Amino acid sequence: MSKKILILPGDGIGPEITAEAVKILNACREAGLDAELEEGLVGGAGYDAVGHPLPESTLEKAKAADAILLGAVGGPKWDTLEDLSKRPEKGLLGLRKNLNLFGNLRPALLYPQLAEASTLKPEVVSGLDIMIVRELTGGIYFGQPRGIEERDVEHGKERVGYNTYVYSESEIERIGRVAFEMAQKRGKKLCSVDKANVLEVTILWREVMNRLASEYPDVELSHMYVDNAAMQLVRAPKQFDVVVTGNMFGDILSDAAAMLTGSIGMLPSASLNEKQQGMYEPCHGSAPDIAGQGLANPLATILSVAMMLRYSLGESSLAERIERAVGKVLDQGLRTADIAYPGTRQVSTREMGDAVLAAF
Amino acid sequence: MSKKILILPGDGIGPEITAEAVKILNACREAGLDAELEEGLVGGAGYDAVGHPLPESTLEKAKAADAILLGAVGGPKWDTLEDLSKRPEKGLLGLRKNLNLFGNLRPALLYPQLAEASTLKPEVVSGLDIMIVRELTGGIYFGQPRGIEERDVEHGKERVGYNTYVYSESEIERIGRVAFEMAQKRGKKLCSVDKANVLEVTILWREVMNRLASEYPDVELSHMYVDNAAMQLVRAPKQFDVVVTGNMFGDILSDAAAMLTGSIGMLPSASLNEKQQGMYEPCHGSAPDIAGQGLANPLATILSVAMMLRYSLGESSLAERIERAVGKVLDQGLRTADIAYPGTRQVSTREMGDAVLAAF
Ligand SMILES: CC(C)[C@H](C(=O)O)[C@@H](O)C(=O)O
Ligand SMILES: CC(C)[C@H](C(=O)O)[C@@H](O)C(=O)O
Repeated sequence: MSKKILILPGDGIGPEITAEAVKILNACREAGLDAELEEGLVGGAGYDAVGHPLPESTLEKAKAADAILLGAVGGPKWDTLEDLSKRPEKGLLGLRKNLNLFGNLRPALLYPQLAEASTLKPEVVSGLDIMIVRELTGGIYFGQPRGIEERDVEHGKERVGYNTYVYSESEIERIGRVAFEMAQKRGKKLCSVDKANVLEVTILWREVMNRLASEYPDVELSHMYVDNAAMQLVRAPKQFDVVVTGNMFGDILSDAAAMLTGSIGMLPSASLNEKQQGMYEPCHGSAPDIAGQGLANPLATILSVAMMLRYSLGESSLAERIERAVGKVLDQGLRTADIAYPGTRQVSTREMGDAVLAAF
Repeated sequence: MSKKILILPGDGIGPEITAEAVKILNACREAGLDAELEEGLVGGAGYDAVGHPLPESTLEKAKAADAILLGAVGGPKWDTLEDLSKRPEKGLLGLRKNLNLFGNLRPALLYPQLAEASTLKPEVVSGLDIMIVRELTGGIYFGQPRGIEERDVEHGKERVGYNTYVYSESEIERIGRVAFEMAQKRGKKLCSVDKANVLEVTILWREVMNRLASEYPDVELSHMYVDNAAMQLVRAPKQFDVVVTGNMFGDILSDAAAMLTGSIGMLPSASLNEKQQGMYEPCHGSAPDIAGQGLANPLATILSVAMMLRYSLGESSLAERIERAVGKVLDQGLRTADIAYPGTRQVSTREMGDAVLAAF
């Protein structure tokens, strides 16, 4: 049966980068991928069109899809929306939650051709290849109760804001298994990041990870406090193979890890549920400041298509073809503005997409 | 009246580094500082001696002191203590909370003599001078309710861990003022870090910071999401002057920022309450792996004494003398193991302390 792929361009540079990725998807279809593409509105684009960042029609299409390709959401235009539930980000969070996409894979990989782009010394980052496994549908992002309310305090009444950081054993176990299995396929080292010296919720996290470890004797499990992990990513990032952590810590650490490569415009991500249904998106954001100028790097979105082929569509050989094609255009010296430096040839978003297509 | 200074060596390398700092404090007393020194137990040392990481006698002495110098707490020896309330870290957290030390100042300063030590390229970090202002007695570190308990869930019963991230308006305002005033004394730029696109508690945070801004028209306030802040610290750290954030984000970002300098063994910190009573400690931890070998760098602790003289004891000129003395020993090429590289002279913890004393 034909697979269904939903394209959600979103905001800012989202439309231009997904357009290039769709070209590659179409090339995959010509090469034998049996898939239908559909489009939908999400984020600020959804809010502007129908008043909601996750329109009902988008959610229906998303549920029916085997895989989703998302550009990016958000921008200053909507940052002042009083009603948090209408912000573009809630479209993204709603998709994650409704589709139960709890397993977020965020590789931080340094392309040898782009080693120069890192702000870190070459010897510190050359060969960097970390996979961050972030829990994506629980933790403080979704914990209840939450809100802002007036409370009685010592000196009268005042407003208080609060959120709840919560994980159940089964939620921890589920993401733990994803991470242990990922480690088995990679370097067999798993570092679980928590703040178990302060937060009860992460004491439970650590306990469950330790319990799981006995089922994966070939994987070496270690634990690290989140503050130390942030430090170690700067000090000696190559010590990491697979890192597993909760939603909030994963948000922070995966962005730091991505930036170590200096080319966040290159990094794809996958968010999977138990049925391997997945949403695929670049790690970078919507970059509203450069939207519509042909400056955006479409490679992270194109590489997200490769992840989609591998994890949700069972087409690893097409995935590899895309990854090789990206390698070739880098070897040819083609660069979008974000990764260009003297001696390379700067190309536009569309030219980059076309070059990958030609090399595919 | 004579000032009271409480010395809390703590665990790991704590005793050896505070010993060197005490030498400098004694030199300050000879130079006119009217102060009495006392010692106390904290952390694992407190637990081992009397069964509690913050013995009652230590708390009493701490309350009576004008300033506290703390080495470091914690180590693997106590990491498996079942009762979280007995862990060494709880001694530190108890001192912060009981003395109401809500304002944590964590400078990330690159010493020109140590530029080599950074894992970042020199052009990215040379001249780096960031002050992170972290809220230290609220947020998720202290929020209630918290715990691990069995709950009914869809499929039966299971354990759930939870913590509460909470701030009241007055808590936010109080740390906000510390940060705005710090920015006024420095480069007049303040970046407030939150996750206001997801967490209600930080929507309130942002709102209060915006309100305060009108009272400090000479300070330029900006806002940044915590994931982006972690990225920007790696990408272009010199864009920051003063950063203000909550307890948890501050823990993570200040460690990342400190590590950018490559010499976390150099960085002091201050934790202050409204009466300018303060606790001073190095940013680095207890480093149990090198304890007792004379390898530890005492400079962060010695520089913490300088912060103490400046912020709690009203002795800025003595503070400057210490800072100049540290500069001199670095110019002389003396280095402890953590910051040594070819062409410098490696010295022990004690030799480093003596060298600062000689240069004072
Ligand atoms: C846009 C935002 C809600 C989102 C998150 O915090 O999860 C983003 O930062 C990410 O990491 O995908
Ligand atoms: C030891 C620990 C409780 C502490 C914290 O998380 O605050 C430490 O990491 C720090 O930053 O001072």
